[in-house]
Amino acid sequence: MNIEIFKEYLRIPSISAQKEHVGDMRRAADFLKKLFVENDFGAEIVETGGHPVVFAEKRIDAEAPTLLFYGHYDVQPVDPIALWQSDPFEPDIRNGKIYARGASDNKGSHLSMLLGLFRSRPKFNLKCVIEGEEEIGSVHFESFLKANRERLACDLVVLSDTGCISEEQIVITTGLRGLLTFEVELTGPTRDLHSGVYGGAVDNPIRALTALCASLHTDDSRVDVEGFYDGIIPPSKAEVDVALSLDCSQLQHDAGRALLPFPQSAIRFSPTLEFNGICGGYTGEGSKTIIPQKASVKISCRLVPGQDAVQVFSKVQKALVEHCPKTMTLRVFNFQGGNPYFLNTADLPVQLQSLLRKTEGLLTAFGKKPLYLREGGSIGIVSAFRNVLGVSSLMVGLSLPQDNLHAPNESFSLKIFEKAADFYRAFVEED
Amino acid sequence: MNIEIFKEYLRIPSISAQKEHVGDMRRAADFLKKLFVENDFGAEIVETGGHPVVFAEKRIDAEAPTLLFYGHYDVQPVDPIALWQSDPFEPDIRNGKIYARGASDNKGSHLSMLLGLFRSRPKFNLKCVIEGEEEIGSVHFESFLKANRERLACDLVVLSDTGCISEEQIVITTGLRGLLTFEVELTGPTRDLHSGVYGGAVDNPIRALTALCASLHTDDSRVDVEGFYDGIIPPSKAEVDVALSLDCSQLQHDAGRALLPFPQSAIRFSPTLEFNGICGGYTGEGSKTIIPQKASVKISCRLVPGQDAVQVFSKVQKALVEHCPKTMTLRVFNFQGGNPYFLNTADLPVQLQSLLRKTEGLLTAFGKKPLYLREGGSIGIVSAFRNVLGVSSLMVGLSLPQDNLHAPNESFSLKIFEKAADFYRAFVEED
Repeated sequence: MNIEIFKEYLRIPSISAQKEHVGDMRRAADFLKKLFVENDFGAEIVETGGHPVVFAEKRIDAEAPTLLFYGHYDVQPVDPIALWQSDPFEPDIRNGKIYARGASDNKGSHLSMLLGLFRSRPKFNLKCVIEGEEEIGSVHFESFLKANRERLACDLVVLSDTGCISEEQIVITTGLRGLLTFEVELTGPTRDLHSGVYGGAVDNPIRALTALCASLHTDDSRVDVEGFYDGIIPPSKAEVDVALSLDCSQLQHDAGRALLPFPQSAIRFSPTLEFNGICGGYTGEGSKTIIPQKASVKISCRLVPGQDAVQVFSKVQKALVEHCPKTMTLRVFNFQGGNPYFLNTADLPVQLQSLLRKTEGLLTAFGKKPLYLREGGSIGIVSAFRNVLGVSSLMVGLSLPQDNLHAPNESFSLKIFEKAADFYRAFVEED
Repeated sequence: MNIEIFKEYLRIPSISAQKEHVGDMRRAADFLKKLFVENDFGAEIVETGGHPVVFAEKRIDAEAPTLLFYGHYDVQPVDPIALWQSDPFEPDIRNGKIYARGASDNKGSHLSMLLGLFRSRPKFNLKCVIEGEEEIGSVHFESFLKANRERLACDLVVLSDTGCISEEQIVITTGLRGLLTFEVELTGPTRDLHSGVYGGAVDNPIRALTALCASLHTDDSRVDVEGFYDGIIPPSKAEVDVALSLDCSQLQHDAGRALLPFPQSAIRFSPTLEFNGICGGYTGEGSKTIIPQKASVKISCRLVPGQDAVQVFSKVQKALVEHCPKTMTLRVFNFQGGNPYFLNTADLPVQLQSLLRKTEGLLTAFGKKPLYLREGGSIGIVSAFRNVLGVSSLMVGLSLPQDNLHAPNESFSLKIFEKAADFYRAFVEED
């Protein structure tokens, strides 16, 4: 029966990025509202500047703590469709896994949560927020939080949008890296120039940009920007030990010869300065012998606890200005930033600390004791919950490394789906 | 009357690069053949794998030296058409200049030559070759030379496809830089990777490529490749003095703040290693936080006398291999090379040396003594004449810096047009 609900939900092609699916987005929200109402939750579709948010709640006791459960009903586009073994919106069960777009990210992950809540006799007040814009950057989510601060008031956010190790070992995600993105453009001559007529007389923006880029790292790939690593809160020995013990075979497979030393701990504990795209001059077929007028690069930094996006941006900008040759005009633009997140369990109220210990016990039912791990990615809404509502998030990672999030043949383990529902029931119910 | 012939020639839109002008190319060749025949030259349209070559000759005396005159009847495309003040194929005379596509490059430059020959009583055997593929890289010209080696046999090539200083001061071009072009590609991970999930664990091809590019120059923009400058034949003090005395205002205008020190001598006497285009990762709107699978750069080198294109390429390739990090797979491809050209007057037969001295005298009729200058650009056919026919080229530059070659509102000075015809007549006639 649960599987039938899951399948029905997966059949809705709720792709937030594509205009032709606006109606499907509304259908997914309606599906959720109906599901909540049928299970004795008060539920409402809340309009935003974009796709709506589904808000639901069940009040138990004004004195009891309130938990807010988060999920997102939107999914990624399906391209390249030719690589799917079955229709992405006609769920197919093979070898204990359900294959469909959104199976893992995030429909299965939050539906198991909701099904657990529905069959529980909770001792917390429950609130649920399922948004529809996570895959397009949660565009309107922070303003939704601000506009609904009071009705969303809670003691802890619980969500499932991260990964685990295996069907037997679930991960409690304790940290996420922050993210800042910006672009750098160098302009030299007044237009593209003939490299024969001008070459040697005129400095080349690609030469200058590559030198500028090269100045931002040391030879061993550390970021060479003054103060970049200042203030970073180092991981504990226990955290490092766990990271070093993790399997690297998937990383090795994807990275090929580009794999760097200590990959698992680098992803979790180190900030990066990454070049995401570079462009300048003639990039078509054959050759065109020009000195281009300009060249530009897109840069992003992943940040770790202790770093602040605005401060790091200003340090990088300072380094860029200092290293930019006088022959070039520098422009740094399109800055966007989000801070890293870290769950400091010691900062939680006593009641929630005991909840965390209980969580560890409950998750052990999957087979092994859960791992506490930081992830390398960034989830903006987790920072938004902390900034706007002032609450921490408990992230229970349910996606397997082989679940192909954002890729063809996305899957979700049915074993995890069923066990997760049991876990969430017990999580809100047991002492 | 000469102007009417010039206008008729300019009205033919002989754009070699564009298929819809194939018929116009043939019309231009027919126009030339007819002109030669009307002026008592034997003339023939010689087919090649592409646009035909017009060959014409006038034999005077088996004992007399033979001069071969070169020009090209094809012109550049006209885009951007909106920037033209008059129809590019309806010649318009304004302030002593004729405006049309090809006015200077190369119809006016070689038509003045032909008109001079037509009205002369030459003391040399005359051969003329007007090709139709110069603007698309003289694709079939070297094989044309090889296939017609005997009938093209001559003692000196004379051509006019370079520039002068002013209407009063013509330039005898003594050198052209060689050109080599190639591409470099670095491949790292097996596909584009999520910069959150993988960042820090995987080396970034753009980082590696920018560092590799940066390793190819010193901070003061010299090429930092072992042996790159080996064997270069330095210019004479006289050549340097002339170069340093030249006006830099046009260069300053076009280069803006990117102008480097000693621009006129750098262009003429220094080799370059130039980045013509760079590309990698996401270059669209906004940000996409990936570690790209690959990144590539297009490189060209301008070479000076004493350098050999194949040898320089192998030195650059060696440096690239040495500086490429182990995390990347390097591919260097699409090599094309042409050697520099230098007219060493001391190597010319005595008779041609006296011709050169005579040339200097005759060009003084423009107003001032001509300048002997090397140019920064590359003209492949000049090397081809030396390689295949074993002869040097005398290059008389007639285009003014403001003539807008390859650009909208191309022009040619009518004063230069008339005086050049007089010069060429005297050049083949007088003692």
